Amino acid sequence: MKKLALDMDDVIADYVDKAVKTYETEFNTKVDRNKMHGKKVWQIIPEEHAKVVRGFPYRPGFFRDLTIKPGAKETIEKLQQKYEVFIVTAAMEFPSSFVDKYEWIQEHLPSFSWKNLVFCGHKHIIDADFLVDDHEKNLSTFTSGEPILFSAPHNAHLNTYKRVNNWQELHDYLL
Amino acid sequence: MKKLALDMDDVIADYVDKAVKTYETEFNTKVDRNKMHGKKVWQIIPEEHAKVVRGFPYRPGFFRDLTIKPGAKETIEKLQQKYEVFIVTAAMEFPSSFVDKYEWIQEHLPSFSWKNLVFCGHKHIIDADFLVDDHEKNLSTFTSGEPILFSAPHNAHLNTYKRVNNWQELHDYLL
Repeated sequence: MKKLALDMDDVIADYVDKAVKTYETEFNTKVDRNKMHGKKVWQIIPEEHAKVVRGFPYRPGFFRDLTIKPGAKETIEKLQQKYEVFIVTAAMEFPSSFVDKYEWIQEHLPSFSWKNLVFCGHKHIIDADFLVDDHEKNLSTFTSGEPILFSAPHNAHLNTYKRVNNWQELHDYLL
Repeated sequence: MKKLALDMDDVIADYVDKAVKTYETEFNTKVDRNKMHGKKVWQIIPEEHAKVVRGFPYRPGFFRDLTIKPGAKETIEKLQQKYEVFIVTAAMEFPSSFVDKYEWIQEHLPSFSWKNLVFCGHKHIIDADFLVDDHEKNLSTFTSGEPILFSAPHNAHLNTYKRVNNWQELHDYLL
């Protein structure tokens, strides 16, 4: 069975949406999402705001209530019939996210086994046939299989990888 | 740079020793360690005791104060000059161990980067040139590089892998 590694944030769970909404609420402002082409939200807001937004992932609980991307659950369940599916997330940068991420998966993907869950830093330690990720730094160093870019505002400028825009497109490409 | 994946429990940190001593203290008994050849401690004690011992790794804090194996710190620091060293531990089975293991590494290997730390389940997702581990289930499924067995009581019966008995032998083999 081929191994399929799926990133978590901004592939399965919608991190960007929570970051933007949390910023808008806390600073009583509105983000023009059109300006996020190729950028993270903290790159298009005032510097003193950016410091706070860059601290969001260090907040205990921040990852616990992200929304799941449309179609992710149903597609992962189908993919599991054809592939050995792993969730590979760079949780190590944010130790307070460990339990949040673990519990999030238990809630949203209850049949997903802990045996197929990976918290890491560098992803070039991963041996898989495919890696689906939203970050170039992870895809560019992934040499054991095929890198697939999952669209997110901050990667809209990239054109060097196979791109899928949503879970329906990933479904159609892999199934 | 070649990638070297090191298991944590019973390779870097002494899990067996804490499990035996905790059992001896809580049950006011003495384990004959000679009987542990090829076995875990819970396999050589009464069944009602074994249930408790098998629950040790689920206790919050249990992994936090394991002792570091003699020579591990010094050898890892030398290995880092020649290899890209990762610590790859099957923490996913015991979610309460996440922060304990993370903090343990910060304490005992303070220069070790979070980028090179992996919490996983199955280790056949790991792409490395070497995997040093005490469990056959991890070594037998590791196909991307060379498996190296690190001696522990429960693997004393195995003779199908390159074996190192301690950190001095691992040092001499890899350096």
